[in-house]
Amino acid sequence: HRFLSSSRGPQQPIMSPTFSSATYTFSRALDPGSRKDEASSRRNGEPHTPHMSRSASSLQSLQASILRRGVLVVRHGERVDQVFGKSWLQQCSTPDGKYYRPDLNFPRGLPRRSNGIKDFESDPPLSSCGIFQSRMAGEALLESGTSITSVFTSPALRCVQTAKHILEELKLEKKVKIRVEPGIFEWTKWEAGKTTPTLMTLEELKEANFNVSMDYRPAFPLASLLPAESYNDYVHRCAVSMEQIVSTCSQDGGVTLIVGHGSALDSCTRPLLRLPPRDCADFGRLVRKIPFLGMCFCEENKEEGKWELVNPPVKTLTHGSNPAFNWRHWVQDN
Amino acid sequence: HRFLSSSRGPQQPIMSPTFSSATYTFSRALDPGSRKDEASSRRNGEPHTPHMSRSASSLQSLQASILRRGVLVVRHGERVDQVFGKSWLQQCSTPDGKYYRPDLNFPRGLPRRSNGIKDFESDPPLSSCGIFQSRMAGEALLESGTSITSVFTSPALRCVQTAKHILEELKLEKKVKIRVEPGIFEWTKWEAGKTTPTLMTLEELKEANFNVSMDYRPAFPLASLLPAESYNDYVHRCAVSMEQIVSTCSQDGGVTLIVGHGSALDSCTRPLLRLPPRDCADFGRLVRKIPFLGMCFCEENKEEGKWELVNPPVKTLTHGSNPAFNWRHWVQDN
Repeated sequence: HRFLSSSRGPQQPIMSPTFSSATYTFSRALDPGSRKDEASSRRNGEPHTPHMSRSASSLQSLQASILRRGVLVVRHGERVDQVFGKSWLQQCSTPDGKYYRPDLNFPRGLPRRSNGIKDFESDPPLSSCGIFQSRMAGEALLESGTSITSVFTSPALRCVQTAKHILEELKLEKKVKIRVEPGIFEWTKWEAGKTTPTLMTLEELKEANFNVSMDYRPAFPLASLLPAESYNDYVHRCAVSMEQIVSTCSQDGGVTLIVGHGSALDSCTRPLLRLPPRDCADFGRLVRKIPFLGMCFCEENKEEGKWELVNPPVKTLTHGSNPAFNWRHWVQDN
Repeated sequence: HRFLSSSRGPQQPIMSPTFSSATYTFSRALDPGSRKDEASSRRNGEPHTPHMSRSASSLQSLQASILRRGVLVVRHGERVDQVFGKSWLQQCSTPDGKYYRPDLNFPRGLPRRSNGIKDFESDPPLSSCGIFQSRMAGEALLESGTSITSVFTSPALRCVQTAKHILEELKLEKKVKIRVEPGIFEWTKWEAGKTTPTLMTLEELKEANFNVSMDYRPAFPLASLLPAESYNDYVHRCAVSMEQIVSTCSQDGGVTLIVGHGSALDSCTRPLLRLPPRDCADFGRLVRKIPFLGMCFCEENKEEGKWELVNPPVKTLTHGSNPAFNWRHWVQDN
């Protein structure tokens, strides 16, 4: 209670710039007065909307934004193989397949899989840091007042785990079931190996205490994922999946959370925005830049009959790395 | 409950190798059978001590290790300026000194300082990730059964914060008071600026809800820290501080936690180990490699009247970075 509280600034929907999806220009980005507005709105360290007093239309825009549907596409958290390399599973298991934790960034435990521990090789879990990232995003979503009304995830374990941790922070883990949609799985050309990874079934996920929907009929069943698919096949299944996801969701507003791969921030938003698929080489280059828990947020503009990219409801999460350390090597390096 | 639990492996004190502090050689590191021992000890995923059955002397060594005093020297967690650069304070404050959070890795709030927000410039707080790192270490210390009986910290805010989060995970934050020892502050030559930073007083720390001891008489008061001190002056004050810390602590065993800077892992352990100061250039090169929450652990061998470096009671924490992301730049980069 003796801490200065962080000002969360004005509500995003009111401050969201007028945005043309065709040209990606922001009137606010061009307005030299906008930074000053932001600073003055924070004067008392309290959320405060400077536009509110200017005209009655801001109240209407607030009402419209509450009723608007939103789609928040989020990348999963840090995966354990990203930190410990391809041999990560050998580093944390005995020859007879028992899991142990050689570093605190390995998760405390692994869910049970019917084929045993080896299937984690191509479907790795979140690291401890990935859990931290997911929880930070969930906590920030709670504080932003974002009303998450449905959740869809890629069938990759790291995505289902990320969704679970976000929902736990939102205190929605029991209310909102996770709908697993294989149609938004990673472009299979980017997956290691010549076969598609053996992903966990809904039954296995349920056994492992994930609150997955057993009723949801996905646009693409797990068995339909083919190895080394073409870029066109990949963007097509994402577009078809998004069409089903959006038509499944309530027409009464609220935000649909989609937890997928970095690629989903592009391939799952462009169909909504009625943009053609990006050039394949550009796509690969851009997707590499998307951090864990990176987000894109689309809002429906019913009046104009279209979806628009707007500011995500929460801030980014940017942090450094922590290198490996062995005090024995260190003292020997005398 | 459907998760395989992580085997924590054998208790460290029993498995600790015979160690010669003069030459830093490990008999176990040279023993080709030791890896096999480790693997077989994990056979049931349960802590299990293979040496226990070999001789009755292992029980005696267990008793000795329980009674032994330990000193665990730990580096603080990720500092906010390490991620956001020298301008971090401008990024999170209004012109009139109000704090806000432009990225989720900035902490939720800042403690109140009598000179206002500008003193954080040279005495930055932990980032959110730094809090995560501290909590992971505290949680692991709790699980390891390490009995922390006293805590000393550098007066730098990041160190006091790290100690607080570790103690919270250990559920000791109310029982064990933090003793602030300016004598183990960072080598002032490495601090930016020509003056020593204005650090928080005990009164300010107490006001900000840190459970600091108001009775502890430090070896070096805050006012005695001089800017740009020599390497010899620095290692001397660390040695004098360690002598006082060790003489202050209970003779009945238990571990003294010391939260300081990367440099402390060297400068606060060598006096205990009766090693001369390291060459100054080597010192600088080595300290740069020490990660956040990096640890060195010294145990007292009363029979031989000396302190020895042994395995820390918890594993390392190794994680990757999460880069900055701006979806506007990303979509514009079309």
